[in-house]
Amino acid sequence: MKTDSKIAIALEAIRARIRTGSLAHGERLPSIRRFASQIAMSPSTVNEAYERLVAEGIIVARPGSGYYVSSASIAQPGRRGREDHALDPFWVSRQALEADSGMVQPGCGWLPEAWMPQALLRMAMRDVARADDALLTGYGPAMGSPGLRHLLSRRFAEEHFLAPIDHILLTNSGTQAMDMVCRLLLKPGDCVLIDDPCYFNFRALLAVHRVRVVGVPFGADGPDLAVFARVVQEEKPVLYLTNSGLQNPTGGSITLRAAHRLLVVASQHGVQIVEDDIFADFAPRETPSLAPLDGLNHVIRIGSFSKTLSASLRCGYIAARPDLIRALGDLQIATGFAGASPVAAAIAEYVLKGGGYRRHLETLNRKLARLRRDCAERLASMGIEVTIRPKGGFSLWGQMPDGCDVSRLARLALDKNLVLAPGAVFGDSPATAQFMRFNVAQMTDPSLSERLKGLIDSASL
Amino acid sequence: MKTDSKIAIALEAIRARIRTGSLAHGERLPSIRRFASQIAMSPSTVNEAYERLVAEGIIVARPGSGYYVSSASIAQPGRRGREDHALDPFWVSRQALEADSGMVQPGCGWLPEAWMPQALLRMAMRDVARADDALLTGYGPAMGSPGLRHLLSRRFAEEHFLAPIDHILLTNSGTQAMDMVCRLLLKPGDCVLIDDPCYFNFRALLAVHRVRVVGVPFGADGPDLAVFARVVQEEKPVLYLTNSGLQNPTGGSITLRAAHRLLVVASQHGVQIVEDDIFADFAPRETPSLAPLDGLNHVIRIGSFSKTLSASLRCGYIAARPDLIRALGDLQIATGFAGASPVAAAIAEYVLKGGGYRRHLETLNRKLARLRRDCAERLASMGIEVTIRPKGGFSLWGQMPDGCDVSRLARLALDKNLVLAPGAVFGDSPATAQFMRFNVAQMTDPSLSERLKGLIDSASL
Repeated sequence: MKTDSKIAIALEAIRARIRTGSLAHGERLPSIRRFASQIAMSPSTVNEAYERLVAEGIIVARPGSGYYVSSASIAQPGRRGREDHALDPFWVSRQALEADSGMVQPGCGWLPEAWMPQALLRMAMRDVARADDALLTGYGPAMGSPGLRHLLSRRFAEEHFLAPIDHILLTNSGTQAMDMVCRLLLKPGDCVLIDDPCYFNFRALLAVHRVRVVGVPFGADGPDLAVFARVVQEEKPVLYLTNSGLQNPTGGSITLRAAHRLLVVASQHGVQIVEDDIFADFAPRETPSLAPLDGLNHVIRIGSFSKTLSASLRCGYIAARPDLIRALGDLQIATGFAGASPVAAAIAEYVLKGGGYRRHLETLNRKLARLRRDCAERLASMGIEVTIRPKGGFSLWGQMPDGCDVSRLARLALDKNLVLAPGAVFGDSPATAQFMRFNVAQMTDPSLSERLKGLIDSASL
Repeated sequence: MKTDSKIAIALEAIRARIRTGSLAHGERLPSIRRFASQIAMSPSTVNEAYERLVAEGIIVARPGSGYYVSSASIAQPGRRGREDHALDPFWVSRQALEADSGMVQPGCGWLPEAWMPQALLRMAMRDVARADDALLTGYGPAMGSPGLRHLLSRRFAEEHFLAPIDHILLTNSGTQAMDMVCRLLLKPGDCVLIDDPCYFNFRALLAVHRVRVVGVPFGADGPDLAVFARVVQEEKPVLYLTNSGLQNPTGGSITLRAAHRLLVVASQHGVQIVEDDIFADFAPRETPSLAPLDGLNHVIRIGSFSKTLSASLRCGYIAARPDLIRALGDLQIATGFAGASPVAAAIAEYVLKGGGYRRHLETLNRKLARLRRDCAERLASMGIEVTIRPKGGFSLWGQMPDGCDVSRLARLALDKNLVLAPGAVFGDSPATAQFMRFNVAQMTDPSLSERLKGLIDSASL
């Protein structure tokens, strides 16, 4: 190797240590001899590299003492502070995912950990630890664990939605399921309908796909069908993205009649509907949704087990027509090689098929029903109005008092270790911006009402 | 609800049962009364629906017996047969992922399950079953488990590659890591350099991204630098995608000198290099790679634990500049909400940090070294020439005898329950098409040489 190349390698080795913070500003560098041995080069090469960095002002020589990183050197990459983040669709995700245990999170989209079926999960993990070698280390079949797909197929059949297992593909999450459907069906510039308001991460996802997004107002009984019909004609959307069962954030549920009418319009205009069934296990049994009416002609159903079983397992699914499933399977090989972890699928299957999970849900859902009532009353006492009373789940969509600057409230709250979910992240309309989503399961702290009330006062005119 | 809407729902309920195979051709439908109760409609509605389907020829009425699905009804969606599949970049993935236990897979890209650290994994799972509630059910931090990222950072430091944990993002797989980098940095029509030959799934992935792919010949000592330099100037590529350490499929390894020269050219022309370090634990310690030379200026390193620990856990990573990592983190929230499962990361961390894993690797790598020698000899006796002798791993890249139609051989082999990896799936050049990749760990069956020899004779002129 030529000497110049060697020096370049040594130079880069030092620069990297400074850049990554392994050598801090002001810190002493290793001796020439020691560093030469560390990077397997001659001392003369390292000497030359050190001298060049001195010439560049990156390190300084102190005779009799050694070489030190200059304090004028490039800044170390630090973690962004909270204040860097705009109140965009990522806002709640970032704050809630990074929250430490000292924070209270009325705005986050999941249950407290202690409310999840921990004992069942631990039992399932010990059971799966005894599974065969292939399950523990193999990629598993391309479509995902047949056992879990069978179980999903049986669960769907209980709501008269018939999807055999070759109509079902497992994924790493419900969000990834949605992303894959978008990758398969959308191109930049296409129009996609979403609910207004809707789950903020749908908006983040659609921004990645660079599509044109049009909101359809969503209320207690589902989407505004007159607007839906008009927008379908005017905008020629490719997809309509919605929650089945309990809509996020409103908690509204489509009626059977509205579901039927929606499907008629969608089928007439070739609009593909994607219904995200992530809150399935919170919804009462008879809650209408689209797939049971349509089969999978114009509907793709996606979902996951993150809300009632475990978000840590990373396991979601897509139910769709077999031609779509085959194409999605190929897409999954190309972009992830395999989908849901066979270990995770086996754990999920173990929990879901046991009677303990049903009993867990019954207790949980009774508790949530009581909390929704209590919380709506407490919110009302603060001047926050909850007009939609959800049939299940943990979210309430509250209209904040007149004069309250909701985005400002969310920022003020964060400074006081409270993560809130301001309306603006769920939609662009001025009406939506006056709302907040509240997680009743994260609001059991008795001091919370007082804190929230104080913050609302500070954020009001 | 109007009667017509009800009938439409009943009609669709029946059609769906036929379409999905829940009601097979020739099968008797439920009685009108029974089906009416199943779908919570009146018998008169169901009667009308049945009569309409009779009129459409979808079901037939047999007086005194009931209604039956017409045998002339729409075909059921069946699974595609093997013969449907082209010898494209998906070929090996599909066959190997769907292979049953009766198949022998010299072409697959992983070790037999029994060679994986099963006992360590089982111990890790039992340990993680006692972890705290948050780990078992939470999403975990957006960048992935800090413990596993620390461990990766320490492993990198052993090769003098310095990447602190805010330069590391966990993903669901190495392939997903690559996909995310492509989503962030590429747009359709961009030029991407790959090795010729290269891992077939890189080609499948890049096809999804609709980029222009240019191959750079890869040999025993790494890429052809003259070609690399020329192509970089002529084609203005955005990315160069390669394996660090042991290249797939050739088993070649870039030399330190070639790595340095490559980086000089790449940095001069602003080409971002993505090195996939998936075979890290098979490579001897001193195997050169790009990230230790460059830091993360022009290199992004990705990898996973699928080859030496478990593919079932679905855990990979990206090490990159913090600005890229932040953007990739946002992309991961939007498209997957979270990356690697915290449970999976905890299991991987438990295994990787124990001394048992190092001992497992030492035994495994000694065994593979012996098998590579033996297998190369056996291949030579069949007229298959292995010119590159890999420094580690389980792959040999063998040039098939003159006159052997390699693609035909692969198809013939599949009929005999042998999954092979024909050269054509690794690259488009005629030279590549004359090779095959052999997995020495999947070729321990003593009858295999005989079977392979017979098939080569059948596929030769």
